Amino acid sequence: MTDFAATRAMFHIPEGVIYLDGNSLGPLPRGAEARVAQMMRDEWGGMLVTGWNRAGWMAKPAKVGERIGRLIGAEPGTVVMGDTLSIKVYQALAAAIRMRPDRRVILSDTGNFPSDLYMAEGLVGLLGDGYELRTVAPEDVEDAIDETVACTLITEVDYRTGRLHDMRRITETAHSAGALTVWDLAHSAGALPVDLAGAGADFAVGCTYKYLNSGPGGPAFIYVAPRHAETAEPALSGWLGHESPFAFEQHYRPGRGIERMRVGTPAIIQLAALEAAMDVWDMTTMEDIRAKSMALTNRFIAGVEAACPALELASPRDAAARGSQVSFRHPEGYAIMQALIARKVIGDFRAPDILRFGVTPLYIGEAEIDAAVETLAEVMDNRLWDDPAYRTRAAVT
Amino acid sequence: MTDFAATRAMFHIPEGVIYLDGNSLGPLPRGAEARVAQMMRDEWGGMLVTGWNRAGWMAKPAKVGERIGRLIGAEPGTVVMGDTLSIKVYQALAAAIRMRPDRRVILSDTGNFPSDLYMAEGLVGLLGDGYELRTVAPEDVEDAIDETVACTLITEVDYRTGRLHDMRRITETAHSAGALTVWDLAHSAGALPVDLAGAGADFAVGCTYKYLNSGPGGPAFIYVAPRHAETAEPALSGWLGHESPFAFEQHYRPGRGIERMRVGTPAIIQLAALEAAMDVWDMTTMEDIRAKSMALTNRFIAGVEAACPALELASPRDAAARGSQVSFRHPEGYAIMQALIARKVIGDFRAPDILRFGVTPLYIGEAEIDAAVETLAEVMDNRLWDDPAYRTRAAVT
Repeated sequence: MTDFAATRAMFHIPEGVIYLDGNSLGPLPRGAEARVAQMMRDEWGGMLVTGWNRAGWMAKPAKVGERIGRLIGAEPGTVVMGDTLSIKVYQALAAAIRMRPDRRVILSDTGNFPSDLYMAEGLVGLLGDGYELRTVAPEDVEDAIDETVACTLITEVDYRTGRLHDMRRITETAHSAGALTVWDLAHSAGALPVDLAGAGADFAVGCTYKYLNSGPGGPAFIYVAPRHAETAEPALSGWLGHESPFAFEQHYRPGRGIERMRVGTPAIIQLAALEAAMDVWDMTTMEDIRAKSMALTNRFIAGVEAACPALELASPRDAAARGSQVSFRHPEGYAIMQALIARKVIGDFRAPDILRFGVTPLYIGEAEIDAAVETLAEVMDNRLWDDPAYRTRAAVT
Repeated sequence: MTDFAATRAMFHIPEGVIYLDGNSLGPLPRGAEARVAQMMRDEWGGMLVTGWNRAGWMAKPAKVGERIGRLIGAEPGTVVMGDTLSIKVYQALAAAIRMRPDRRVILSDTGNFPSDLYMAEGLVGLLGDGYELRTVAPEDVEDAIDETVACTLITEVDYRTGRLHDMRRITETAHSAGALTVWDLAHSAGALPVDLAGAGADFAVGCTYKYLNSGPGGPAFIYVAPRHAETAEPALSGWLGHESPFAFEQHYRPGRGIERMRVGTPAIIQLAALEAAMDVWDMTTMEDIRAKSMALTNRFIAGVEAACPALELASPRDAAARGSQVSFRHPEGYAIMQALIARKVIGDFRAPDILRFGVTPLYIGEAEIDAAVETLAEVMDNRLWDDPAYRTRAAVT
């Protein structure tokens, strides 16, 4: 069994704060500060440009990808780090679409994170020629997969409601129709067990600053199934995805396997923070995380529903059907969340009316859940949210 | 006049090292370590997700872009940070090509950095439909601009030879032919005065880890001329380039001006290092940098040619015709560079036979240039490079 007191001790959580927004930005792992300082002083400062070899910087994207791969059921050598999640979405879609040259449709759902939809729009706009992004309601995805679909683009866990798609079933349905799958694991990696290999996923992408705690703007990852790794054509064909980057050839030749999904120079400082953040995963298993996550989200729902009848549950009631977050609806959701944050219970608001709470067993336990319920009840009972100060929208909400 | 002793004191240069590779990776600015530590502890650690507003993270890409814009002659509000240089090349090309829908050619030169060519290949490959990347010799670019060219893609300073393209003249020629220009400033920004507005450039991109000293994998920048800023269509249409990212709309609407060139979540730790690295530019001017750079590169060429007759100058002899680097050719270039590095004179090697030395007045002066010449002469005179240990190629050369 995981020692969750020990995992919690790996993080810096400000005194008195109950942090239920690790699904947006994970907290600072204590080891990350020291690791980044060491990297900057000893590697960048001390080795200068020779750090690319001597400190192993050039190999980091694959090395760190390997550690993330273990959390998402990826085969060895199938995950590499780089860029942002939006770029990785584009890269996966561009590769998938070229593998189905006689099809023109990217299928997604209206619950997908907007940036995924926007990147797909950008790609089909550039391609022209009848290419199209088709979106349906989350529950209609399977029925909408037909012979026109080149690939699906689905975020496994809905960023607003936490609703969980069935990766295995959708992948099977897609494959039966001759379509490929691109899975966005933004709210899955580090949140619940994922079995990419077992589900037969074709491509997957994700970010690391949520449940993987790599810090703001930490590098994204991309997974390509081994059966596609040597044939997928990178549209974002940068030099570090070249078979031989330092030969400085005039023409692009894709590198071996997942390496071809690298593009430009990797963000080594952010990667150092991510590396340190990954250490906590050696202390637990995704099964332990999932069990505790389900217990805590159930506890939170029961507590809120008992204490705050005005809040309407927006997440699936069945723990097995949702990720590691709980969302409630309220027309005054924005102000309520500001009132909570002012009282050191940090969740977030997602337009138009969603109060979102991420549950992260690495550093959240029953005591925090109960205290959050109590504060929320206090805010609701006394209409503490009804204050003009809580209605002023910040740039980032 | 710039106090170059004071600028030098801003950097950590290891004892005894003569660093002539700041054109590949700039050294650690002393302020960067403290700034990053403070950002991690006080902002990420202390503010958690609220740092996006409270610490101003969300506004950083434009704020830092503004400081870089001042070094490259950009109008206010025309530069934004993000991604890697390769991604920014793709983004600029995709926007430029859509502004000339009746043309199919991207024109570049064989001296361009391979990743620029590769990204263009990726883009034209994806577009199909007769799109083409055409490359000519660097000196033939102007003559090759005709009515088929949608845009040029030129790196102002050749990464191997240091040869400088005439930005103003090429831009004029391109415009007369109805073509647009994409300028890569990788070896220009912080190396020599650039006047994007004066030259009438359409798009420009660059990296920050060379002459701008932001550290390995620091964020890239993109410039869009004000006359195109509200019409350029982003193909990499990520949520942070949306007019209203936190409205979470289903469809992409490009943001105002340069903001639309943002894609995903910015790398805040790397941006903190870059911000600290930018402080040194308040202590100097690009004119002072250029004057000292020309004097130092002239001195280096004279010294090497006098002491090492076997090395053939690969850079233009006229200082006004080159950037801030000097390159020499030798068939044993790789081993010679390894022998130099072993003696703490750090330059780099570029296949097939180029010894490359970056000259960075912020922290390099006459004493370092003379000492580098002396060490190089010692290596050449005594064939110190003729050692099997210096022939083993590392992953990154």
